[in-house]
Parts: sequence; C-alpha cells; structure tokens
Amino acid sequence: MSFNKIVIFGIGLIGGSLALSLKEAKAVQHVVGFGRSQANLNLALKLGVIDEIGLDLASALNNADLVFLATPVAQTPQILKSIIPYLQEKTIITDAGSTKSDILNYVEQAASTSHESLQLLTQFVGGHPIAGAEKTGVEAASPSLFKNKNVILTPSQQSAEHATSTVKKLWEITGAKVTQMDTDTHDKIFAAVSHLPHLLAFALVDELASRSNAQQLFQFAASGFRDFTRIAGSSPEMWRDISLANNQALLDEISAFEKELAQLKLFLQKQDAKALQTLFERASLARNQWEKSREQ
Amino acid sequence: MSFNKIVIFGIGLIGGSLALSLKEAKAVQHVVGFGRSQANLNLALKLGVIDEIGLDLASALNNADLVFLATPVAQTPQILKSIIPYLQEKTIITDAGSTKSDILNYVEQAASTSHESLQLLTQFVGGHPIAGAEKTGVEAASPSLFKNKNVILTPSQQSAEHATSTVKKLWEITGAKVTQMDTDTHDKIFAAVSHLPHLLAFALVDELASRSNAQQLFQFAASGFRDFTRIAGSSPEMWRDISLANNQALLDEISAFEKELAQLKLFLQKQDAKALQTLFERASLARNQWEKSREQ
Repeated sequence: MSFNKIVIFGIGLIGGSLALSLKEAKAVQHVVGFGRSQANLNLALKLGVIDEIGLDLASALNNADLVFLATPVAQTPQILKSIIPYLQEKTIITDAGSTKSDILNYVEQAASTSHESLQLLTQFVGGHPIAGAEKTGVEAASPSLFKNKNVILTPSQQSAEHATSTVKKLWEITGAKVTQMDTDTHDKIFAAVSHLPHLLAFALVDELASRSNAQQLFQFAASGFRDFTRIAGSSPEMWRDISLANNQALLDEISAFEKELAQLKLFLQKQDAKALQTLFERASLARNQWEKSREQ
Repeated sequence: MSFNKIVIFGIGLIGGSLALSLKEAKAVQHVVGFGRSQANLNLALKLGVIDEIGLDLASALNNADLVFLATPVAQTPQILKSIIPYLQEKTIITDAGSTKSDILNYVEQAASTSHESLQLLTQFVGGHPIAGAEKTGVEAASPSLFKNKNVILTPSQQSAEHATSTVKKLWEITGAKVTQMDTDTHDKIFAAVSHLPHLLAFALVDELASRSNAQQLFQFAASGFRDFTRIAGSSPEMWRDISLANNQALLDEISAFEKELAQLKLFLQKQDAKALQTLFERASLARNQWEKSREQ
C-alpha cells in the first residue's frame, strides 16, 4: 500500500515519526505539514520530515489520501471545522489522541453541522499510538518510533470498512501492532494503566512540594522516587485535557485505588505482617511477570 | 584513614560494594565476611570482595576495627546478640538498614541484656546508604556504587564521638556524601520519599492484577506504567519489614496522600480545569526542578 498525499496536523514527535516511517518504507509520495510554529515547520521541512509546509487548506486537502491529526487534543474541534469544507470523499481521517470517546464526540459534532459534512463520520477512524511520551518535537521524531509498539484503533459504527482497513495498513507499515476496540473500552483501559498512574504521581509530588521541609525531602529522594515520579514531569496542559476528556473513567479508577489504599492502611494499622507480605507478593509477582512478558 | 580488619555481615550488593570500595582505596587490610549462603561467600572470596569467610565469631571479631551489618534488617537482633560476647571496646558497629529507629531499638535491647553489653550503645552508629536497590547479590557489587550517593548517619545520644567520626570517614572513602540526622527525622523523610511511593506502586499493581481483565490491562501498559511501577517489583519481605519498622510514619504519609488525592478527585468531579492545571503545573515544575538539581 502506498499513499500519494498525506496531510499531517502537528509535526512533533508523533506526527513527524509517522511521516519518517512512511517515507523510509517508500509508502508515501508527498507529506504536507500544518502546525502552529513556523520555526518547527521550517525545521521539519529541512529535516525532510515533510515535503511541503501547508499554507492553504483547499490545495493541501485536494487529492489527499489521508489526514492525520497529531496536535494537542484540544485543537481537534477547530481543525475538524476548518477542514470540512475541503474534505474529499476519498480522504480518510485519523488521529493520535490519548482519549478516544471525546474525539469521536468532536467528530460527531462537526459532522452534525451540515448534510455534506456527514461523510466525516464514515471517513474518520480514531487511533492511539502507544509510544513516546517523554521526548517532544520534530527533532525527536524517528522512523522506528512505532516499531513493535501498540496502536489502538477505535472505529465507530459509522466508520467505513475501507477507512478502518486503510488506517490499519498505515500503522502496520510503521511496524506497529494494531488492535481494534470501541472508544469506551479504550478509555477505561487507559484510565487504569496510564491516566491513574499519572495523576497519582502528580499528587505525590505536589503534596511533598507543598511542605515546609520540601527541600530536605527532595534532597534524599533517590532512584525509586525518580522512576515513580517521572510521569509527574509531563505536560500539565495535556493532563488537564485528559482529566476532563476521560473524567468519569478516571474518577472510577481513583475510587478503586482509594479502596485498595484503605485496605493497605488497615493492614498497616493492624501491623498484619502476613497480609502485608501477601499483598506485596501478589503485586511483585504481577509486576515481574509483566516485565518478563514485555521482554519476549 | 585505614582499617586493619572489617567484619561484614551480608556480602550482597551493599556489603560487597563497601568492601570493594575500601579495597580499591587501599583503606582496609582484611575483610571477613559472614552470610547465610555458603555459595555466595565462596563467590565473594573468589571475586576478591572478602579475604576470609567468617567461621568463628570470636576470632573474626578479635581486633576488628569495624563491624558492618548489611543483612536484611530482620536478622539484626540475632546478629547483635551473637556478637556481643566477643565485641571489643575498640570495635565500631554500623549498619545499612533502610529504617533507623527500629535498628536503634534493637541495639538498645541488646545493650540492656547485661552491664558488659552496655558499651554496644556507645560503639554503634546507625547508617543508611541511599544506593542500589535494583540489583542484588555480590555479583552486582561495585567499588563505585556509593560515589556521589547520599549516606545518612543517625548517631544516638549515646554514640561515642569517635565512633561517629570513624563511620563518617569510612563512607567518605567510598565517595559518598555523608549527612547526619536523628533516627526519627530519617524515618519520616524516607516514609515520604521512598516508603510511600513503594506502597502506592504495590497497591496500584495489586489492584489492577486482581481484575478479571488484568491481562488486557497489562497488555496495553506502556513506558509510563513501567517506570511508575518499577518499585512494585521489589522484595515483598523487605517491604513487609519496612512497613512494620516505620509503621506510624508510613501511616501518616498515607493519610497525607489520601487528603491530596481527595482534593484531586474533587477537582475532577467539578471538572475544574483551572484547579487541575494548577496542581499539575506545581507538580511538574517541582519534579523537573528536582531532576535538574540532580544532574548538577
């Protein structure tokens, strides 16, 4: 499979890496990049990540096979609105947002604005590449970023079959493992394994930083603290948006965690050595089995 | 400063690395090693980490300058009891336990058994090298393990001044940064920056592993989850002992964290974008400043 023209909104780590990966596989002829920072777009052009800086939506979208939305999620409604007038029937749209129900809502809202824009629903297939949260910017883009990484697609009831299969092939070219599920399942899974850990890390660091002896505490924090809190260094804006977009699932996760923590606290209060060890053993076993399964 | 003879209980990562570091600095003539595993002691001897496998406490402790306790903390009372009859006045005792009030209690208990054993209190200086929790065993021992790492000494009111200064010099030879504080301050600091994070990581993994869709959840867990939960792979026995040894400080930390989490939950329930972003910004700033300060 080869694409004649792909239009990418947001030429950062994710958008840039997709472009590079497709180029390396000779699976795309021409990549047009849009973005808020002219300097970043110039750099992307210079690095050969994109072939053209998008200036005009009409000409960029003319004959485009695919539009890839890789901007911060909050920009999605505005971008959808702006591209609808120029969207051709053949053009498939996908994205890279960390939450999927809210994106589908944006698409449904954009699609409901006119009879003509209804096609947006059939042409859109949500996606979430699970890769590279730590580095940002086009300089960090790599053709191998998605190799052996999970990419989850969340086609809706309205998504056309050929749209889903095209987006699937797109990601398979990059070496990713593609899985499909509905947006609700996606958002619940990521509330548990990603969003909750981020919020716990933010909460821990914020709580410690607010104390009068914060400096002393941080002075003696070591490698365990470093790894545990690494994700607390993430973008506040992005996590504000995720917290709002995946609000209910995240609240459910916090409640489940609070229950577990209350139980652990009870074991501590009772100084129940056996119950503590059993809990730690279950967790340690699960964690080490998971690590092992990843290495295979 | 140079030691003629040092006796080390527990020739693992910590005990082995101290021996290697002192040997590299030519600061010790003779290292005697005790441990539960004969195979490990044989390996330590073969690797040149120790010069002699301890067989008999009387001869090992004869003329020893220093005893270093680097076994799991639970073995400390038994070791103290066993060495008291052979302990000479010149011999200084220190340890490497992660909690310090409980170790001092063990020393006080051991010292109270007879008039002669009272000297134990003056000869003992508690210590905690903040290094290397991830690898274990003498194979992982390295002469540079403690270089630029923090070592905290917790001399008691009874500790002799020359005992404290000797243990300080011992660690300075390894390249460590030595700080002194009382056992209570130590235990509160580590409840916050080490023990609480470990318990939160154990709790998260245990909670997820208990679900019917655990396999699916773990399948999509990625690098953020990996780092956040790395410490949940730690030794259950060690963390059971720490949970009991530092029980009250840890309960206080859990309560403080629960309050912070309740606040975060409230912001989520109210979908308060501004409050969420402010909290994430404070945490992210503190975390990134800490990371930067470590690199300097």
